[in-house]
Amino acid sequence: MLINPAVIKLIRDSNNIAILSHIMPDGDNIGSSLALYNALNKIGKNAAFILEDDVPQIYKFLKGSEKVEKPQNNHKFELVIVLDCGDTGRLGKSERYLEGRKVVNIDHHLSNTNFGLYNLVDPNAAATSEIIYQLIKSLDIPLDKDISECIYTGIVTDTGQFQYSNTTNFTHQIAGDLIKQGVEPSKLYRDIYQNNSKAKMKLIGRAINSLEFYHQDKIASMTLKKEVFESIGAQDEDADGIINFARDINEVEVALFFKEAEDEKVKIGFRSKDYVNVNEIAQKFGGGGHKRAAGATVTGEIENIKEKVLEAAIEAFSVV
Amino acid sequence: MLINPAVIKLIRDSNNIAILSHIMPDGDNIGSSLALYNALNKIGKNAAFILEDDVPQIYKFLKGSEKVEKPQNNHKFELVIVLDCGDTGRLGKSERYLEGRKVVNIDHHLSNTNFGLYNLVDPNAAATSEIIYQLIKSLDIPLDKDISECIYTGIVTDTGQFQYSNTTNFTHQIAGDLIKQGVEPSKLYRDIYQNNSKAKMKLIGRAINSLEFYHQDKIASMTLKKEVFESIGAQDEDADGIINFARDINEVEVALFFKEAEDEKVKIGFRSKDYVNVNEIAQKFGGGGHKRAAGATVTGEIENIKEKVLEAAIEAFSVV
Repeated sequence: MLINPAVIKLIRDSNNIAILSHIMPDGDNIGSSLALYNALNKIGKNAAFILEDDVPQIYKFLKGSEKVEKPQNNHKFELVIVLDCGDTGRLGKSERYLEGRKVVNIDHHLSNTNFGLYNLVDPNAAATSEIIYQLIKSLDIPLDKDISECIYTGIVTDTGQFQYSNTTNFTHQIAGDLIKQGVEPSKLYRDIYQNNSKAKMKLIGRAINSLEFYHQDKIASMTLKKEVFESIGAQDEDADGIINFARDINEVEVALFFKEAEDEKVKIGFRSKDYVNVNEIAQKFGGGGHKRAAGATVTGEIENIKEKVLEAAIEAFSVV
Repeated sequence: MLINPAVIKLIRDSNNIAILSHIMPDGDNIGSSLALYNALNKIGKNAAFILEDDVPQIYKFLKGSEKVEKPQNNHKFELVIVLDCGDTGRLGKSERYLEGRKVVNIDHHLSNTNFGLYNLVDPNAAATSEIIYQLIKSLDIPLDKDISECIYTGIVTDTGQFQYSNTTNFTHQIAGDLIKQGVEPSKLYRDIYQNNSKAKMKLIGRAINSLEFYHQDKIASMTLKKEVFESIGAQDEDADGIINFARDINEVEVALFFKEAEDEKVKIGFRSKDYVNVNEIAQKFGGGGHKRAAGATVTGEIENIKEKVLEAAIEAFSVV
């Protein structure tokens, strides 16, 4: 996208700049925010990256990750730049920084509410980091290895290693340029992906062992009860991504993941490969998401819930 | 690399062209061979792709995969092009096609023996498919979606989804160009990677369950006995790649994989992440490979073998 020259001017004219991003951070909001943080400080700005949650361990190798600040009450920023947030509710406690300040909103989510004074929103960008790459170029700040690693991390995590349909020719052009700047893909992949905890790996094994198949193997389900987490010392977030092991079996179209949580709640994950709309299934249980990935949280006994969800999933095949 | 103009002339002047590649096919030799096969037939050549083994199921979506021929005794080819083979021994029964014919040898292995009349060997290429991309461009054959899918498959499999250290700026430039030609990464990844058999997935679960840790968790080992393969109906090749689950745990430097095979044999896989040379460990057991990935086959009782290999692995830490 073309970067609005007014945004370039506004950044050039500001000295104290707050960079904000969303709670429950991921590779793209950490990567894009740290890239901008490093770039702005490189040209002498007093920039701060403010984030409610901690930087996840796997992204702590990125330069500047140790300088991330928690939201406070007193601040003296002239300009606030919000990255990777569809709406201001995603900011958590950082939302308080918006009041009475010029806001630049930079994002790639289609659902973005254009809450900024300026909105650099490009739903065709594979990652917010792609837009930040263009912004840094437009600011005439030379890329270096540190900034490039941040951008590369955002792109590689938000495209699932260049695999999702958001990956474009431009995505690869940027990745190539970042390698020219010194990024070593094998090193970054090691930091980000070859970095599972023992507990997470055990949880993957338990989840695979729990696989059950239905509807001529077109449906696969996994179940993880609370006591499994307790017995191997796994955290709730260790279950992230495990549903993909069920989806990635060749006959499977719909993958279901049942996770027992606190207070008699069951978290359900839904994935599909080609043609079943799992968003519609999830909505029947008060959840939602996208056609190929959705979720819901239901209160009740896990075996009862499984039965009802399975029925709904089988029914979903009859409407395609 | 610059393509030798003599090779261009030789291909232009030939009508009946055999494309040969190695036994135990993978994504790069299938992808590069089919790309060249499709391109040459597009300009009216009578090209054949001859391969001893069957095309693996996951690559059968590529155009031309149904036209692959088995080696025969009678043939009338003027020109033979060998792809992705370090030496002619890798050709299996296809080796017979070389005798008395002009041979063009196209490869990216450092160890290539330059067995051709012309040798387009570039160890800096991430995949043989990268060289084929350049060859097709030099032949002025327009890329189309089918040819592009073949090249993309070769690149994505030989770089481990753009992650190995062979991935360069040029690799990404090619990938971007292929997307412009109509390649849909999400579709290809689904065909290649989201395509595990139920048996393979169960085997992954069993292997993870067998994880054992040693030497302050710097060593992880997995063990799969014969009866496990039998009980879940898994094939020997279903174990490919499973050792990576052991390596990808954060504390682990060395991963070991013990697989019971026929005739009292135990196949051992070795991987390391950063600094232990597993090639040296494997050599102590009559095997070999690279610093970060090696293998060996040993005759004996699996528990005895594990014990000796573990000792050797622990010792390897004291020499780094």
